[in-house]
Parts: sequence; structure tokens; C-alpha cells
Amino acid sequence: MTRGLLLFAHGARDPRWALPFEAIVQRIAARAPGLPVRLAFLEFMAPTLPEAGDALVAQGCDEIEVVPLFLGAGGHVRKDLPELLARLRQAHPGSTWLLRPAIGEVDSVVDAMARAALGHSN
Amino acid sequence: MTRGLLLFAHGARDPRWALPFEAIVQRIAARAPGLPVRLAFLEFMAPTLPEAGDALVAQGCDEIEVVPLFLGAGGHVRKDLPELLARLRQAHPGSTWLLRPAIGEVDSVVDAMARAALGHSN
Repeated sequence: MTRGLLLFAHGARDPRWALPFEAIVQRIAARAPGLPVRLAFLEFMAPTLPEAGDALVAQGCDEIEVVPLFLGAGGHVRKDLPELLARLRQAHPGSTWLLRPAIGEVDSVVDAMARAALGHSN
Repeated sequence: MTRGLLLFAHGARDPRWALPFEAIVQRIAARAPGLPVRLAFLEFMAPTLPEAGDALVAQGCDEIEVVPLFLGAGGHVRKDLPELLARLRQAHPGSTWLLRPAIGEVDSVVDAMARAALGHSN
């Protein structure tokens, strides 16, 4: 079983928008150097989720965790993402695709945001 | 000088989308019980930023920190938010309005998201 991580973000017209997402990828690469990680976008930016998923499979991954880099889970996470994931499951039935909760719903992330909003860095 | 915290999020049609944002407010209230905090939305949800800002001033706040609860800083943070903030500054010249960086650009939050994406809770 070769694990891979597929991070799914919204995308925006302004390229500076992607900076925190690229920082997350770098931080993951530093913590887990051997782990295949790809960032994908719903719109405005490349690659798409199916493209990034194809790339992970081509890299040999057969157990792929999909992490929505969204603060809240609305239509993009509850509707658009499952539809895109269904395409990947159909194209790559030999791989397992696990959908994880939106990153903003993870307790440790909520806690970090509350501390940061208060101006505390840790 | 009475400090207040104004948290600015995007908003969505699905009311469940707001859950992590409400959790942040609760976490802040637990950490800083006396601090006035209001959550405001760009669209789909109430109150708006001007409404929530008015409420903080009515509550006696004259130094208000505005924290964008956005992962990336694109058009909403770089263009829409400063325009809304200009309205508040004009309506309440006796208060200081400080614009903070997008929450997703804060290093400790990037770190928490990277750990959470890897499946580590702390």
C-alpha cells in the first residue's frame, strides 16, 4: 500500500492567494519527506483534482487521502468535491480514495486560528 | 482604549458552513472572556462587516482589530475587505480599525494545517 496526499483548495485569480497552500505543502514535505503530496484546485488555478489524482496514481500511490483545504464545508466540499472524487474512483478502481474532513473543522486547526486571531502565535 | 475583535469570513448558502467559524468565536470567548468579539460575513450570511463593526462601536470599542478568516488573500481580502473597512472608518472616525493578515497566512495556522493534513492532531 503506497499512501499519497491530495490537498484540495478553492483557487483564485490572484496568484498570491496560493501562498499559504504552497506553504502547507512545503511544511508537509519537511515533516514527511518520502510522502507523495499534490495540491489541486477547484477553479482558476491548476492542476484540477482529477489531474493531480492521476499524477499520484502514476507515481505509484494506491491509497490516497483527500484533504479539503477549506475552512467551512459548504457546497464546494459537500457537492463539488464528491463529484470530482467519483471521477477519480471510476478512473482508478485499483486505488482507495479516502475523503477527510475539511481542514477548518479539525479541532487543532480551530484552536490555532482562535489563538492567532487573539494575536497569540502559539 | 477598549479593544474589540471583528472576524470576517466569506459566508455560504449552507448554514453548516459556518460551524468552524462559530467554534473559533467560542474558543476566543473561552480564552478572553471579557473581549468583545463579532463574526461578520461577505455574503450569504449575516451580519455584514459594517453591521458587526457598528455593533462593536455601540458596545464601546474604539480599537478594533479586523481578522480575515480566509486561508488565502485574494480579491475578497485585498479588495472587498478594504472597501468595507473604509466605510467603517468613515462612519466611526473616533475608532481605530486595524487590519490583520489573513488567518491562513499566520505561521502557526499553516503549521497546524500541515499537521492536520498529515493526520497528526498536535
